[in-house]
Amino acid sequence: MLGIPDSEFHRGDAPMTKEEVRILTIAKARIEPDAVVYDIGAGTGSLTIEAALQAPKGEVYAIERKPEAVALIHENADVFGVAGRVHVIEAEAPDGMDALPPADAVLIGGSGSHLADILAAADERLRTGGRIVMNFITIQTLAAAIAWLRAQKAAYTYETIQIQVSRLRQVGPYDMAKAENPIYIVTAEKKADIA
Amino acid sequence: MLGIPDSEFHRGDAPMTKEEVRILTIAKARIEPDAVVYDIGAGTGSLTIEAALQAPKGEVYAIERKPEAVALIHENADVFGVAGRVHVIEAEAPDGMDALPPADAVLIGGSGSHLADILAAADERLRTGGRIVMNFITIQTLAAAIAWLRAQKAAYTYETIQIQVSRLRQVGPYDMAKAENPIYIVTAEKKADIA
Amino acid sequence: MLGIPDSEFHRGDAPMTKEEVRILTIAKARIEPDAVVYDIGAGTGSLTIEAALQAPKGEVYAIERKPEAVALIHENADVFGVAGRVHVIEAEAPDGMDALPPADAVLIGGSGSHLADILAAADERLRTGGRIVMNFITIQTLAAAIAWLRAQKAAYTYETIQIQVSRLRQVGPYDMAKAENPIYIVTAEKKADIA
Amino acid sequence: MLGIPDSEFHRGDAPMTKEEVRILTIAKARIEPDAVVYDIGAGTGSLTIEAALQAPKGEVYAIERKPEAVALIHENADVFGVAGRVHVIEAEAPDGMDALPPADAVLIGGSGSHLADILAAADERLRTGGRIVMNFITIQTLAAAIAWLRAQKAAYTYETIQIQVSRLRQVGPYDMAKAENPIYIVTAEKKADIA
Repeated sequence: MLGIPDSEFHRGDAPMTKEEVRILTIAKARIEPDAVVYDIGAGTGSLTIEAALQAPKGEVYAIERKPEAVALIHENADVFGVAGRVHVIEAEAPDGMDALPPADAVLIGGSGSHLADILAAADERLRTGGRIVMNFITIQTLAAAIAWLRAQKAAYTYETIQIQVSRLRQVGPYDMAKAENPIYIVTAEKKADIA
Repeated sequence: MLGIPDSEFHRGDAPMTKEEVRILTIAKARIEPDAVVYDIGAGTGSLTIEAALQAPKGEVYAIERKPEAVALIHENADVFGVAGRVHVIEAEAPDGMDALPPADAVLIGGSGSHLADILAAADERLRTGGRIVMNFITIQTLAAAIAWLRAQKAAYTYETIQIQVSRLRQVGPYDMAKAENPIYIVTAEKKADIA
Repeated sequence: MLGIPDSEFHRGDAPMTKEEVRILTIAKARIEPDAVVYDIGAGTGSLTIEAALQAPKGEVYAIERKPEAVALIHENADVFGVAGRVHVIEAEAPDGMDALPPADAVLIGGSGSHLADILAAADERLRTGGRIVMNFITIQTLAAAIAWLRAQKAAYTYETIQIQVSRLRQVGPYDMAKAENPIYIVTAEKKADIA
Repeated sequence: MLGIPDSEFHRGDAPMTKEEVRILTIAKARIEPDAVVYDIGAGTGSLTIEAALQAPKGEVYAIERKPEAVALIHENADVFGVAGRVHVIEAEAPDGMDALPPADAVLIGGSGSHLADILAAADERLRTGGRIVMNFITIQTLAAAIAWLRAQKAAYTYETIQIQVSRLRQVGPYDMAKAENPIYIVTAEKKADIA
């Protein structure tokens, strides 16, 4: 089952991928039961946990630079019973990616300014047929990701969607729309090694 | 010219129709230079002021029940030099609509629970060919407005759009999307008297 | 795994729930492995199939009135290897719902004009704790569903989202947004029998 | 008055800026009655015409490379009675911009691959305090425009919005949402000459 309600995660003050974006991100990663998944810029670990639940015989490697977020990921892994298969690396990616085993799927949430390096490091470890699923809230990081993918030519195909969710709050007799910020989700599939 | 930036209005704590919704609402009302316009549930008066600027030889009647909002409308009318053509009625519509002169356009923003009565009162005073432009943030008031319009059969035609605006904030080297709440804009044109 | 690409379904000329809406609808239904699920107005059966894949020990009952769509559901059930657990009833719901076993989840896509009757029939068979997940593209059916849910008071809680997806087509050197129609997804959870 | 309905323009097969985007684009250009406006990549001329109507004592220069579109602009200028103040240049911008008089506002719709050159040519002729308003449907041209603006540092401020409109079609007893493609509108204001 996919789609833990936002309220069930321990989250402190950290921003968290919202439920619908999380569901679509995980679905588009097409995680097999025995998959190895990286979650880069894992934040509270909400994607990490959902990925671990999709891969009961797999392993998830979460990379996160903030110590307080690292603690939250551990907490959430405990709450959802996946601590044995969740490995948290306190580092700023691509640091910390060197030692990871080959990946079937790579999730990239918070990429800061190292996106191209992270993509290169992810590509080195991603199996052919594997997927990179990225969430973007800025035009610059979105454009950079697409430029990187296009530069790899036949090595990758990709799909981009923008999703905008509004939630209707129940206020007295009314249901009143409240928008959440739009997110771009880029799903890249590795077709071959980069030439 | 249409489209005063939000920041130029005096607004206190009141919610205000955002710039883009305001521009589209006024444009869809097709206000002639000598038009008589009602602004029902006028709030800060931002629609009132824009309507008055579109109708330099016309008159705008703003109905608003909250005393502090009434004061803001007067302030804004002064700031934008339209106080002579803006008439503010402190009442909860449809109260206060009885004494108004015939209308060329009616704007309905905050309608609370009296929508059908307001529409009936507006219709009585609206000339054939005139327009009612309504903004909705709840599904119930939108559905009620459409049901009312459909019940009038050939007396009204209408168009409904939903508009969702995101604004890209400039944060360091990034432009980051922040959503505004979606709004429904219903534009009704009076074709004949109600049978 | 959830989220079959649209192109993998046999679909004829029938409209089909798009991938992202399908993923979110199934996720929000929270389908357990042994769940009994109804898919009302099943169309091509894309929701039926995804539900059946989430419930490898469960059963899915698809109700669909068009013979050509019924044939498509059977075809798709064969393609995805779930024919043994998918039961197609050629009827216009609520017809055909009488004989169904108790449900854990009810999906309502195409409801036409019988929504209240379908909801009443679904409620009779839905276990406490079970969910009804509905997709709407018209304001009238959305408003009717919410009115029905509100009328049941404490028997149901519900959440409503509107989701709007744009897909970026790759055209020469450009990625160009193409909007899909916005959909409302209402997720209702049964808390108690209707008083 | 701003906001001619789409159906009133002669348009052939050419794509046309939709009513709501056109209204917002013109409003954000803040066109004074005596303004000189450029419309770059004018297409059917819908923005050209609206600009000319906002500037009854001004002039509008439309640059468009396709002969059939040039003919449409002339036709539309005739229909709306602004032919005397609309000057059409058949060229692929920035070609054709050299000879233009100083501008108060520049509208950029279809920019193809010459965006940076067009922006440089526009900037040379744009008065301080003047505005450039651009519509984008691709991520690459949006990103290029923003990169150009950021590179000019204090010479320009800018605002970016994304607008997504859905139109509710009336189908029997229902109002059914149909999405139009999302558009980015970038509004740049010239604060000083480029250093």
